[in-house]
Amino acid sequence: MKKKLTSREQDYSQWYNEIVQEAGLAENSGVRGCMVIKPYGYAIWEKMQMELDRMFKETGHENAYFPLFIPKSYLSKEAAHIEGFAKECAVVTHYRLKNTEDGKGIVVDPAAKLEEELIVRPTSETIIWDTYRKWVQSYRDLPILVNQWANVVRWEMRTRLFLRTAEFLWQEGHTAHATKKEAIDEAEQMINVYADFAKRFMAMPVIIGLKSANERFAGAEETYCIEALMQDGKALQAGTSHFLGQNFAKAFDVKFTTKEGKQEYVWATSWGVSTRLMGALIMTHSDDYGLVLPPSLAPFQVVIVPIYKGTEELEKVSKVVLEVKKSLESKGISVKFDNRDTHKPGWKFAEYELKGVPIRLALGARDLANETIEVSRRDTLEKETYPIKKIENKVDSLLEEMQANLYKKALDFQKKQTRKADSKEEFIRMIDEGGFVYAHWDGTSETEELIKQETKATIRCIPLDMEQESGSCFFTGRESKMRVLFAKNY
Amino acid sequence: MKKKLTSREQDYSQWYNEIVQEAGLAENSGVRGCMVIKPYGYAIWEKMQMELDRMFKETGHENAYFPLFIPKSYLSKEAAHIEGFAKECAVVTHYRLKNTEDGKGIVVDPAAKLEEELIVRPTSETIIWDTYRKWVQSYRDLPILVNQWANVVRWEMRTRLFLRTAEFLWQEGHTAHATKKEAIDEAEQMINVYADFAKRFMAMPVIIGLKSANERFAGAEETYCIEALMQDGKALQAGTSHFLGQNFAKAFDVKFTTKEGKQEYVWATSWGVSTRLMGALIMTHSDDYGLVLPPSLAPFQVVIVPIYKGTEELEKVSKVVLEVKKSLESKGISVKFDNRDTHKPGWKFAEYELKGVPIRLALGARDLANETIEVSRRDTLEKETYPIKKIENKVDSLLEEMQANLYKKALDFQKKQTRKADSKEEFIRMIDEGGFVYAHWDGTSETEELIKQETKATIRCIPLDMEQESGSCFFTGRESKMRVLFAKNY
Repeated sequence: MKKKLTSREQDYSQWYNEIVQEAGLAENSGVRGCMVIKPYGYAIWEKMQMELDRMFKETGHENAYFPLFIPKSYLSKEAAHIEGFAKECAVVTHYRLKNTEDGKGIVVDPAAKLEEELIVRPTSETIIWDTYRKWVQSYRDLPILVNQWANVVRWEMRTRLFLRTAEFLWQEGHTAHATKKEAIDEAEQMINVYADFAKRFMAMPVIIGLKSANERFAGAEETYCIEALMQDGKALQAGTSHFLGQNFAKAFDVKFTTKEGKQEYVWATSWGVSTRLMGALIMTHSDDYGLVLPPSLAPFQVVIVPIYKGTEELEKVSKVVLEVKKSLESKGISVKFDNRDTHKPGWKFAEYELKGVPIRLALGARDLANETIEVSRRDTLEKETYPIKKIENKVDSLLEEMQANLYKKALDFQKKQTRKADSKEEFIRMIDEGGFVYAHWDGTSETEELIKQETKATIRCIPLDMEQESGSCFFTGRESKMRVLFAKNY
Repeated sequence: MKKKLTSREQDYSQWYNEIVQEAGLAENSGVRGCMVIKPYGYAIWEKMQMELDRMFKETGHENAYFPLFIPKSYLSKEAAHIEGFAKECAVVTHYRLKNTEDGKGIVVDPAAKLEEELIVRPTSETIIWDTYRKWVQSYRDLPILVNQWANVVRWEMRTRLFLRTAEFLWQEGHTAHATKKEAIDEAEQMINVYADFAKRFMAMPVIIGLKSANERFAGAEETYCIEALMQDGKALQAGTSHFLGQNFAKAFDVKFTTKEGKQEYVWATSWGVSTRLMGALIMTHSDDYGLVLPPSLAPFQVVIVPIYKGTEELEKVSKVVLEVKKSLESKGISVKFDNRDTHKPGWKFAEYELKGVPIRLALGARDLANETIEVSRRDTLEKETYPIKKIENKVDSLLEEMQANLYKKALDFQKKQTRKADSKEEFIRMIDEGGFVYAHWDGTSETEELIKQETKATIRCIPLDMEQESGSCFFTGRESKMRVLFAKNY
């Protein structure tokens, strides 16, 4: 038997690390802060990619690929970008190695120093806008609706698998528009695409909002975000979409001729989600038995475990299993038949529980006689025996039910953990207890900073659907027109 | 009108560069040797990826992701790997930037020097085998059949779009096996997958063979390759698959317990194809009018251009076009309807010819009256008018015919350009004229090296299906048991 996971209550952070590793999702590598995404984890990411990519294409975007490296001088062209953006980057200074004199090792060849250092992209606005200058002359060349799937590097000092790693995988959309309105519409459209993806595929409810000036992306005029609530009561920023104004167009001199023959700077957006979503997915649904996956993103939705003694019984069971598998697959359900003889059924049950496979079917000699099959669902851990005939219909509707159930459960949790605070005392208590806290704020960066210092809570967002409500800032007592969303965060 | 391309005869290399840029496939970036893959080029690469990925999964492989960076010390662990592998690599030495004192620029922070330099992966054997050590204990953990889609960097001094760039995209399979035979079978299986992909999707005939010791991958016991012939008579290595023996297992101490309880080193393979295939695809089929794409890899297989005067006529034409589009799509054919009013039909015709769209349909008022539609195929540039009724069947069979025709044309070319040389004089003449040359060789690396120096021809491979035939080396006159394949190459 496998050893039991640390429970969430015992040590949430340890529980998370154990799930990531024991479920075969990812592990640390020999390179500080860089993770290895293992096949099972990568298969989930691929599912996410596939759905997102489809949604991007449906909204008119195309993929392209831009260089991994950015000349150092590019980074300083947009003032706010370099001022605000983290400077923890991997810097390439040389382009050649050479053998040591004894021939046994290698050293960096000092003669092969680059004239200008190259930065491994932490994000690609600069290199992309340097390229767009060549692509845009006239209004006919706009809009440019491009997305890139890529790896990026930010030299984080404290890393955690999926949540914060030095290298991570992501997509970054970079669009160019003729008008301000079109760019804002695009930025809003994409944050809605992310929220829709989170809801429909990840079964994860999110709050859509705007970042305060403090938390805005460096170089953006406005940052839209989606915020999700994890089971430990901390918020996780799951995606961002930036309206960049004309900042990058000005920095990289990207102008176009309007229909009327005037020269104008181009309007921009950028938007991205990353492998961080894997962390959000894990923490939203999983339990003390391991990973819980929504059926929409499970690498395989059903696992079938045969129960048998001896090869003759296995053969009989297998024959029926293969029929069941075929009927499930004809419904578009992905199925794994684990007929390995190297592991016992009990071991397999624990293994697939740990891996979050939505439905487990078990079939033994007694089931054959009764024409039944045992169905276990991962979300509720309920087990039931059904007639094997037309089991594909039962499984199909169960998968749908589970997808909806996971979302509902997460939404109920989020609602329960969302409160309003009207005094500093109340605020501090609620933040300490965890969850989202709506509170009035005077709208200044200074106050936001003081709140963070004193309570560790930050403004997660100014929700888009927030109603105006006059009140006074819980911290300074000054006037406020609406509540904003606070939480401690990842 | 667009300007005409340089013809192949005039300047083959210039013709290639112009196609890549004018068809919107790729361009050089502000970073030396790194390319930007533009949306149309990337869409072709995505098609390739999708088919290859499917073929990898059908043969039992899973995807995973390993770090971009490799600690310098890893590279020296496998002696032949570091001895033979190119040392032109991007080297990361620092992990932080800082503002200059005037606040306007940034510099590398000298305090943030890495203890051990990191190499941007030129290939991932070392980091992956360092990981496999943790994954493999027993025969039950084998085989590991993993593939990675990634970017890699090799600091090439002379670069050409797609063919040789500092950064390129590729996939690299890395497998681990319990027996030598299983690993060799895997390496052979994967080179056959590549050949099959080249033939069926790229419509590109290839010769499958083994590399000579000189041309073998550094660290491999045997390198399988596929070699294609370009229209200028030069060969292009389009994919390789390596049997790595136990070299990396020994270097990274990856052992497993056999069923019998013995400790043994694991057997390995690695195999890859890259965005270089884009170069091969372009050079195999294209002509002086631009790109020619096999229907299987075209981002859209059919473009429909409306011919009209005024909006009323456009509306009438559009109505029929949309019906045609729908009927084509119902057959799984991808279609673009170019109804832009910013460009004239003539301009569009030239544009899609340049972009290699397999079939162009044109529909005007006269066609509406006659219930006909004009069909132009890109491979032969033939134009014909057909009844519009059931045009989807015509287009469907035409696409199939074109796919087959492109392969046949390329195969005929390859056959015509493949000859046997039996004397040095003949060899030199044939190599100068271009094409594949089969010749006897005495089997020594020294002779191979001398031939290369004198004629610029290299042994492309020792074809797997080559028959034994006694003869004498055309260069040294020494004994030879079979002919091998020579050519000048990319």
